[in-house]
Amino acid sequence: MKKLEDLQDLINEAVNKLAFPTYRAALYEPISYILSLGGKRMRPALLLLACDLFGGDVEAAISPALAIEAFHNFTLMHDDIMDNAPLRRGKATVHEQWNKNVGILSGDVMLVHSYKLMMQVADHILRLVLDIFNTTAVGVCEGQQLDMEFEERNNVGIDEYINMIRLKTALLLGGALKIGALIGGAENKDAELLSNFGEHLGIAFQLQDDILDVYGDPEKFGKQVGGDIISNKKTYLLIKALELADEKQANELSDWIALKQFNNTQKVTAVTTIYNALEVRRYAENAMQTYADKAFEALDAINLPEAHKQYLRDFADGLLVREN
Amino acid sequence: MKKLEDLQDLINEAVNKLAFPTYRAALYEPISYILSLGGKRMRPALLLLACDLFGGDVEAAISPALAIEAFHNFTLMHDDIMDNAPLRRGKATVHEQWNKNVGILSGDVMLVHSYKLMMQVADHILRLVLDIFNTTAVGVCEGQQLDMEFEERNNVGIDEYINMIRLKTALLLGGALKIGALIGGAENKDAELLSNFGEHLGIAFQLQDDILDVYGDPEKFGKQVGGDIISNKKTYLLIKALELADEKQANELSDWIALKQFNNTQKVTAVTTIYNALEVRRYAENAMQTYADKAFEALDAINLPEAHKQYLRDFADGLLVREN
Repeated sequence: MKKLEDLQDLINEAVNKLAFPTYRAALYEPISYILSLGGKRMRPALLLLACDLFGGDVEAAISPALAIEAFHNFTLMHDDIMDNAPLRRGKATVHEQWNKNVGILSGDVMLVHSYKLMMQVADHILRLVLDIFNTTAVGVCEGQQLDMEFEERNNVGIDEYINMIRLKTALLLGGALKIGALIGGAENKDAELLSNFGEHLGIAFQLQDDILDVYGDPEKFGKQVGGDIISNKKTYLLIKALELADEKQANELSDWIALKQFNNTQKVTAVTTIYNALEVRRYAENAMQTYADKAFEALDAINLPEAHKQYLRDFADGLLVREN
Repeated sequence: MKKLEDLQDLINEAVNKLAFPTYRAALYEPISYILSLGGKRMRPALLLLACDLFGGDVEAAISPALAIEAFHNFTLMHDDIMDNAPLRRGKATVHEQWNKNVGILSGDVMLVHSYKLMMQVADHILRLVLDIFNTTAVGVCEGQQLDMEFEERNNVGIDEYINMIRLKTALLLGGALKIGALIGGAENKDAELLSNFGEHLGIAFQLQDDILDVYGDPEKFGKQVGGDIISNKKTYLLIKALELADEKQANELSDWIALKQFNNTQKVTAVTTIYNALEVRRYAENAMQTYADKAFEALDAINLPEAHKQYLRDFADGLLVREN
């Protein structure tokens, strides 16, 4: 079993070696740029890990892993335009560094390139792999559409929210694992179970992220505590709070959401006080645990040596118990 | 041999039957909308025609033909955003009817759907067909990038211009024919020749379009005569004129290009007078004929019954001798 860190290194090496045409710099430089911004390369590394778990040759899975990373970064490039985001990993976003047209067109060609990379699998799994990739890609777009729609709506339900994070982030994790498993020679059934593991784990991870935004240790979390509260992001906590709030609490939340100018600390403190009164953290942790359990259930059912499953369990535990 | 009009009808029927999920209307309605705006369905019909030419089952080629049409409309959706175009076929563009974010995201999912449609071919040609589709898609993006770049540049050469129209419009015509031929059972060599036929014909057709904009019969052409001149579009005629102009003519052209407010008729008359003095129409017609000849040369070399080749010759003649 290869270590995840080593696989992440492998991906970083491969990303650095990715060569795009130099003759059309305005189209391809933004691709190299966004890929160079780093990130944990978790999705492609998990694709390699899944391949390795089933005894496959990790080298043969590098191009499809890069396809997942390229696809992910294509979505970031276009999402950043849609969200008007100035920064990505502390650097200027592509549409800030160049302009929106460049971001649209480079993203488009990046999506095509992700198909080119994904096609570098054996003939007998080509259609299967591309079907998974298509389904994943459609789902991710649907997730982004829901995410944007939710910004405009005040009646988002918990189930809708879970479905959105499943589509927008968890699906790609599941898809990466499934494709990696198939390249590694897994039976369809096991690949599907591993995909379920990844999808549920992804949802649990996102819910944890929502919790840590408010309740995480600022020094260990590495982000501004309450960032989601400040930006009115519809997280599990906010949606649950709006669902459980009495009239007074609901009005107070609505007021904070509507306020254009405010003191960040005051807003975070006030909203957190309501969250505490309504115990939304407990609800969120329960939901997170439910999805973690589903992930482990799927994992248990996979036909793999116990040691390999334990490796995945340890990975999931490490992911879900971030110090906070 | 099926008639092109019948194949266009087949495509229109299939487009009308295309079903997208109704549960995510904001994402899929724009796709149905842009596909419903019509157009001649020339690209997908030519894919079917190519399939038919080699004795293939046209019904089996409908999904890939729809893929070509979906891909083409995805590029229109994104190009319209980049070009800030308010109208497409006389109707509001997607980003005008909805907004830019909708146009970006619906376009993205439309590109993914075009892959799903393109994959509906037999296993033994799946990789080949997708390779052609990828190459075509990358080329079309590169063509759009060049087209945008040329708007900002005053030193575009004729060769660069030809390469741009080849990438932006001719490549997809060639790709559609090649994929159709392969589905129809053509040998690789013949599919390639048919692709060359389409690509050269596409360039010739675009050059004719440049000529007709200035010299076409307004009643038969169906567009405003001189529209390209009014909008300073870098056509073959303008590029050639800038190349051949003496100092006085060059200054006069530059002045008209720089002028923000002007009388349309005056500008068209003045620029056309320079075009006439420099005989750029003759250059353009020669270039058009060169590419038409290349198209016919490729056609001659294809291993197909003479009657089938004659059918394509008649089609090309009809396309290139529009009444003007």
